[in-house]
Amino acid sequence: MLAEFLGTFVLLLLGIGSVAVAVVGLPGSGRQAVEFGPANWLIIAWGWGLAVVFGVHVAGGVSGAHLNPAVTLAFAVRRDFPWRKVLPYWLAQVVGAFAGAALVYACYRWAIDAANAAEGIPRDESLGTYSIFATFPAEYFGNSWWGPLLDQIVGTAILLLLICALIDTRNTAPMANLHPFIIGLVVVVIGLTFGTNAGYAINPARDFGPRLFTYFEGWGSIALPGSFQWFSGYWWIPVVGPLIGGVLGAVVYDLLVGSTLKAREEKAEEGPATEEP
Amino acid sequence: MLAEFLGTFVLLLLGIGSVAVAVVGLPGSGRQAVEFGPANWLIIAWGWGLAVVFGVHVAGGVSGAHLNPAVTLAFAVRRDFPWRKVLPYWLAQVVGAFAGAALVYACYRWAIDAANAAEGIPRDESLGTYSIFATFPAEYFGNSWWGPLLDQIVGTAILLLLICALIDTRNTAPMANLHPFIIGLVVVVIGLTFGTNAGYAINPARDFGPRLFTYFEGWGSIALPGSFQWFSGYWWIPVVGPLIGGVLGAVVYDLLVGSTLKAREEKAEEGPATEEP
Amino acid sequence: MLAEFLGTFVLLLLGIGSVAVAVVGLPGSGRQAVEFGPANWLIIAWGWGLAVVFGVHVAGGVSGAHLNPAVTLAFAVRRDFPWRKVLPYWLAQVVGAFAGAALVYACYRWAIDAANAAEGIPRDESLGTYSIFATFPAEYFGNSWWGPLLDQIVGTAILLLLICALIDTRNTAPMANLHPFIIGLVVVVIGLTFGTNAGYAINPARDFGPRLFTYFEGWGSIALPGSFQWFSGYWWIPVVGPLIGGVLGAVVYDLLVGSTLKAREEKAEEGPATEEP
Amino acid sequence: MLAEFLGTFVLLLLGIGSVAVAVVGLPGSGRQAVEFGPANWLIIAWGWGLAVVFGVHVAGGVSGAHLNPAVTLAFAVRRDFPWRKVLPYWLAQVVGAFAGAALVYACYRWAIDAANAAEGIPRDESLGTYSIFATFPAEYFGNSWWGPLLDQIVGTAILLLLICALIDTRNTAPMANLHPFIIGLVVVVIGLTFGTNAGYAINPARDFGPRLFTYFEGWGSIALPGSFQWFSGYWWIPVVGPLIGGVLGAVVYDLLVGSTLKAREEKAEEGPATEEP
Repeated sequence: MLAEFLGTFVLLLLGIGSVAVAVVGLPGSGRQAVEFGPANWLIIAWGWGLAVVFGVHVAGGVSGAHLNPAVTLAFAVRRDFPWRKVLPYWLAQVVGAFAGAALVYACYRWAIDAANAAEGIPRDESLGTYSIFATFPAEYFGNSWWGPLLDQIVGTAILLLLICALIDTRNTAPMANLHPFIIGLVVVVIGLTFGTNAGYAINPARDFGPRLFTYFEGWGSIALPGSFQWFSGYWWIPVVGPLIGGVLGAVVYDLLVGSTLKAREEKAEEGPATEEP
Repeated sequence: MLAEFLGTFVLLLLGIGSVAVAVVGLPGSGRQAVEFGPANWLIIAWGWGLAVVFGVHVAGGVSGAHLNPAVTLAFAVRRDFPWRKVLPYWLAQVVGAFAGAALVYACYRWAIDAANAAEGIPRDESLGTYSIFATFPAEYFGNSWWGPLLDQIVGTAILLLLICALIDTRNTAPMANLHPFIIGLVVVVIGLTFGTNAGYAINPARDFGPRLFTYFEGWGSIALPGSFQWFSGYWWIPVVGPLIGGVLGAVVYDLLVGSTLKAREEKAEEGPATEEP
Repeated sequence: MLAEFLGTFVLLLLGIGSVAVAVVGLPGSGRQAVEFGPANWLIIAWGWGLAVVFGVHVAGGVSGAHLNPAVTLAFAVRRDFPWRKVLPYWLAQVVGAFAGAALVYACYRWAIDAANAAEGIPRDESLGTYSIFATFPAEYFGNSWWGPLLDQIVGTAILLLLICALIDTRNTAPMANLHPFIIGLVVVVIGLTFGTNAGYAINPARDFGPRLFTYFEGWGSIALPGSFQWFSGYWWIPVVGPLIGGVLGAVVYDLLVGSTLKAREEKAEEGPATEEP
Repeated sequence: MLAEFLGTFVLLLLGIGSVAVAVVGLPGSGRQAVEFGPANWLIIAWGWGLAVVFGVHVAGGVSGAHLNPAVTLAFAVRRDFPWRKVLPYWLAQVVGAFAGAALVYACYRWAIDAANAAEGIPRDESLGTYSIFATFPAEYFGNSWWGPLLDQIVGTAILLLLICALIDTRNTAPMANLHPFIIGLVVVVIGLTFGTNAGYAINPARDFGPRLFTYFEGWGSIALPGSFQWFSGYWWIPVVGPLIGGVLGAVVYDLLVGSTLKAREEKAEEGPATEEP
């Protein structure tokens, strides 16, 4: 539990920190204004991916480093993880995410205030600074909930499909304790390929913890259902979508690849056995 | 076959997804317009490269993870792979590519429509959104078919030359199951060095599957021979070019390096044998 | 000591060199002016991170490659390192940093002079060229010392927390001598997430050595307390902050994760022992 | 020799190809003009670095993969390599570099012509397209030969210092056949930190081979001594500088680190020996 807390804390501290650098750090660092573009996106994609690398390195030896309620749920469904530990893990993950968001805020509150002042808008109307902490769908989705929900389901399904492949020792699981690095690259590539539709939460704790934090720190009216934004009431999608998608991805891997590898191994084991008279 | 399907599906889902992010995701994500430039290219090059890493991780333990008809053909020519399995593998790869393109479309259709609306052109005239799925040559090639064909031959020859080097245990093949990562870097570097002439398909399935998909989803008149675009009738080049180039690259490796290493090994094995009286 | 000197020298040569490329190299290389933006930041973040990779590779086999007084202090507090060697290590690190800065200056003095001439300001008023060597806080901190100090404490605490995780063989420490690569990625991610507030010194030698060098090479009035800049008198913060933060990060790791892993190992060792009659 | 030829050929094909993408590929690929900036530099730095990774993978098992006359010379000076093979290796490297440049030209000649046409200048006045193949110093060096020569000496000294560290099994040499990847990262970081002063040839073959090629393909008056450019007569600097710098870097490593590690190992071996009565 402590490890899961610390790992999720590190994940959020670094991940959210990279958005802070891209959104308010570089523009406000005493140099000229920076517009949000593809190079900022590279900062964010590598920032979150490396955040995963090190979250896993911190917690891996103790808790298995789920760091994500969707991972915990999918592992429980696969019977890799005891159901009675699911809720405690979820709690540790959300508390770690909340604490990570709080420390990023403590370090970047000067930059956030400077950015809001430069734009001339109050904090609770600033989508830019809100986006440091919580995710929201692109405006082109309009009133569609299905679009962002599908995005979260697909994004998290890829995540779990690939995690299941990477820890399957019957497949090509990385050795020499380099699996945290390769799992981090999964999150880099999801950011580069499924990041812009709705901010690739793909992790209920990663989104809900910081969103809760923004509620207490002055972005309240953006976060709440009933706010004036097009995505008011959005908060449940990056919670429910990842939980569905994670289970889906694990099931697809087990059906299409995992079961074949397991069957081969059993056949290989049986083979010599039947030869014995 | 299932693994080859799933691996190619993952390859296309992530690879095409990265182009979608660069072309319609970032510009349309509620922030200001993004012009296509070198940082977008970094997103695409790393996106496709990491897509290969994880396509190989998914299928590697079952099918060997060719994910590319040019790889399958070259391995068959080298007698590393039975000829009778070539066509089934090709079919699985094309179907996987088609399915990957379809899922990317399902997730990005709002972004695609928003981008077309912003440009004020119908889908079947939009080269930008078409480029998410299928490749085409740069305009400077004019009527030359030789230029893009040479580009595809050379790009795929490098790919197979390097794959042959990376799986040759007599040479410096990466161990600890890190060959998927290093093979993915091959595709990163080909994107950075041979990507802009004609979109570096270097894989008949990667190009033909999604091109077929666009035919059914409203880009038809671009994709078809006889369309008004300068590259009408182009579709066979990223199919034939890679098949030629792949065999060529494997042959060059075997002639210039592989054969020397094999001869050395045989000599080393004979050596001790002749010392025995 | 010689290894620690050479390792820190390599670290600074490459790290400071990357800032020189981003700030005066690219704009002055005969092509058109380059504004400071997120792609420059990627050059700096990867430059410093890879500088750490190779500083560690150079000195790792001899001195353990601390390269950073904050690392040396934290290891001494953890009793991993003898206190009597702390001061000699610190000296070697600062001298190595000074020498690295001097060699970068020797190579880039033409570029620095060209950049200052293009801006039309004398060297001792040029924040841009000063930033190649030493760090300073973003202007939005105003008169607050607490902001940059907190930034340095948090940044260095993450660094040491992750280093402690990465060298803990009870946890998931990278093998095959790839720990220098992964430790370098720690510095990449800190750059991407905690780099813009105050230049992520996170290393007293990295900041103090080059700052001393600028004092002798014409940026004197910027560096000195009492200068006209908003950050006059700032020099002690990237010295004291990292020393505090480093110890803090190591303590947090040991309390929340390290102690659990140690207890588990001891239990595992005791277990079999008590079974013996 | 064949392996050294093929390895240098791959190195140049990919390395020069990445400059072609950054300089004429992206601007000419049917989209809008791209200015040369830091994101282009990231394409070039990663392109050349990964080119080294795969050049080493191709030739490593046969020839040791020097791919660079400066490496061959430094190894001969260290007595790691027989002097009589130095000239044959140099020849294979230059021929490989020439052939690599020729194949890049064959693939990119349409893009080069389109770029020159867009700028409205003939090929033999186009510094931009010339820079795809050969290096030249930044304009701010003026008439100084010492600046670019120092740059080449320092850049190649770092290269050899780090290569010596990375292959020293007494130090932290990467295992699992990942040394090509880490050596490639050396060239990434040199590009990010010592690339803009004079194009980081740091390899006589890499520069001289393609420069010879440009002489035959229409850029003649730029390449020749006596041309109107400020760098006329520059060709010998990226030949002589790297040869000096390479030896220097290897000597510094051996003096400051290598000798200590060797002494320790000998002491360790003697130790047990003296304990035996």
